[in-house]
Amino acid sequence: MFYSKSFINTSREDPKVAECRGHKLLLKANFLYMVSSGIYSYLPLGWRVLDKINKIIRSEMNLVGAQELFMSAVQPIDIWKKTGRDKDLEEVMFKFKDRKSREFCLGPTHEEEITEIVKRYISSYKQLPFVLYQIQTKFRDEPRPRFGLMRSSEFIMKDAYSFSLTQQCLEDNYQKMYKAYQIIFDKFKFNYFISEADPGAMGGSASHEFMVPAEIGEDVLYFCPKCKKYYKEEGKCLVCQCETKSEKVVEVGHIFKLGTKYSKAQGAFVLDQQGRRKPLIMGCYGIGVSRILSAVAETSSDSKGLIWPKTIAPFDATLLVLDKSQTQEALSIEALLEKECFSILIDDRKSPAGVKFNDAYLIGNPYIMIIGKNYRESAKIEVEKRETGQKFEIAKDKIKDFFRDEYNIK
Amino acid sequence: MFYSKSFINTSREDPKVAECRGHKLLLKANFLYMVSSGIYSYLPLGWRVLDKINKIIRSEMNLVGAQELFMSAVQPIDIWKKTGRDKDLEEVMFKFKDRKSREFCLGPTHEEEITEIVKRYISSYKQLPFVLYQIQTKFRDEPRPRFGLMRSSEFIMKDAYSFSLTQQCLEDNYQKMYKAYQIIFDKFKFNYFISEADPGAMGGSASHEFMVPAEIGEDVLYFCPKCKKYYKEEGKCLVCQCETKSEKVVEVGHIFKLGTKYSKAQGAFVLDQQGRRKPLIMGCYGIGVSRILSAVAETSSDSKGLIWPKTIAPFDATLLVLDKSQTQEALSIEALLEKECFSILIDDRKSPAGVKFNDAYLIGNPYIMIIGKNYRESAKIEVEKRETGQKFEIAKDKIKDFFRDEYNIK
Repeated sequence: MFYSKSFINTSREDPKVAECRGHKLLLKANFLYMVSSGIYSYLPLGWRVLDKINKIIRSEMNLVGAQELFMSAVQPIDIWKKTGRDKDLEEVMFKFKDRKSREFCLGPTHEEEITEIVKRYISSYKQLPFVLYQIQTKFRDEPRPRFGLMRSSEFIMKDAYSFSLTQQCLEDNYQKMYKAYQIIFDKFKFNYFISEADPGAMGGSASHEFMVPAEIGEDVLYFCPKCKKYYKEEGKCLVCQCETKSEKVVEVGHIFKLGTKYSKAQGAFVLDQQGRRKPLIMGCYGIGVSRILSAVAETSSDSKGLIWPKTIAPFDATLLVLDKSQTQEALSIEALLEKECFSILIDDRKSPAGVKFNDAYLIGNPYIMIIGKNYRESAKIEVEKRETGQKFEIAKDKIKDFFRDEYNIK
Repeated sequence: MFYSKSFINTSREDPKVAECRGHKLLLKANFLYMVSSGIYSYLPLGWRVLDKINKIIRSEMNLVGAQELFMSAVQPIDIWKKTGRDKDLEEVMFKFKDRKSREFCLGPTHEEEITEIVKRYISSYKQLPFVLYQIQTKFRDEPRPRFGLMRSSEFIMKDAYSFSLTQQCLEDNYQKMYKAYQIIFDKFKFNYFISEADPGAMGGSASHEFMVPAEIGEDVLYFCPKCKKYYKEEGKCLVCQCETKSEKVVEVGHIFKLGTKYSKAQGAFVLDQQGRRKPLIMGCYGIGVSRILSAVAETSSDSKGLIWPKTIAPFDATLLVLDKSQTQEALSIEALLEKECFSILIDDRKSPAGVKFNDAYLIGNPYIMIIGKNYRESAKIEVEKRETGQKFEIAKDKIKDFFRDEYNIK
């Protein structure tokens, strides 16, 4: 991809609307466009990151046998009346009537709708268990939209729902999802913690939150520096009895044993082996997809700009062409690397070298490559690792191996 | 994928709400769930088809250099006032206010929003041309939602927008998109036609529609049986002077030379080479993603059920296990084929063979495989081609080659 042909429009000034570090960088580096307070469009760079986040999530969800669907954003208010959540969530619901005066809302979440769908088709324990998931836009009329995608009125979530006959089966599904979440969040390469209501007894607790420590966090957790354990309530560490310290955190995932709240209220029952009518036992499993984009931007940057982890960076490398005569060579290097599935942003603009370096740092692809002045003699590419600043000189015929090594590809 | 673990719940009865053949089959075969009149959720089978449609579109869009983004669904009504389309589209807009009484609508389309985005960043001809696209849910309060996804209130579209300095550059982009559309629609494997306002002079016309002939079509075209040309207006064929015949059609794609309507109204100007202020010249290029799902269902089926083209089928084959002892063998055949990237739905349910055959035909994957009774002696798999009914006996060690041949993989 040539920078000169791309829709990447970084800004030199700090955006005035920015409320925190990550928000500022995402706007300045042109990942996001603010449509209105709390409402964003994802520009090509931002979309590339989201796409990678989604691919990681999908791959792990599919591996544990969860099946993807895609529910409507528009939901009849009637289904919300069954659980009483039309009242509980009234404050944050965007509501409207259609031309026939039927009342709808924009789904702030999908427990009610998934329960309606499942109850329509499932009547026997033989059809259980299963897990359904989707990646979709959700809508909440936030009282105080803040920090860009951290707290926005339109946001992207992965939400999964498990359906079981027995509590034990719910536990099994929950454990499976818990492990899948660990793999997913490990891949995002940020510092995250799982907060447990009852530490050490994962099976017995009703909910786990996946949290990223961040200054702008709106939740508070209590942290034991010795055991590295997080607690929701203030007090001593339950393991070592140390004093815990408070820390601001951002929730990026939440898994929850819902039980039978929705199935009972909405009439989602099955017949068990003995022909008895039993409510479905549900679990739900959310990941804040767009919030992860913000959380990484917030927690992974330096004075020069963003620093994307390799797994979700918009491109694997920015290749600076500092002299127009080297464009062909740049294309040849790109071809070598694209064959190995590495994506390269070639900065071929007619801008001063300083501008190109600034933008490469600001955008934050994991590697910055330079075809230097001596390239014709040396055939060596200078590579800088964005995260550490380490510099390498790599011969063109070794560049492929260098990237394969760096990405741990065997 | 095991059928017994999947969320596939076909129905024996014809759904009462079905308004046409395709709608009936998509509901009966469990591709769709009707949330409310004109509003649907895509169940796992339907989502698999949509996912393949999207991949084909993305791949061709990226090949012609279009860049993907993802705009907000919620749009401030203010931007619509600039073009006057808040009035033109008032009838079909879902509108609501947020808690601060700001007026919003759910995007029925995105010309206004993309123009706002582009104008924010683009000020010089040097930044042109480019094409942006997204695949996103759109919302229209349809007066008469009908025929399932054919005319629904919440639907998925691919919409692309080109931005150029000159009319010639718009023409070039338009031609590029026109060709990409032909490749895309060819891949969907249905009978489609391109309707031209001025036949033979593609460059000179302002708009082309990609149409699928279907009984339930709501548009009428005039068809020359000799030249196979389609016209928008009644009359003689402009090529051979034959009488044209009317035909009902469904629009599945539309490309349009917008010109400067939006850029002038919204103030999206750039400076040209001579420093003169010029409005951006725009084109827009839509594909009705969810409508294609319906159009294929409507036009590709027989008395037994759906017949998916190989390119967008939910699975490449259904493998019927007619005797429980053969489950291991089925897994081994699946493994062979999945290695080659073919996806297999293994029907391992404890149902009578008749039920399994019925469901396999109804769902309509391109191939149906049977591990027959004599498998242990013969090691031969019976394969039926859904589209033609042709039957083959393929030895297990040749099954991979059979599929590679059928899919033209070299």
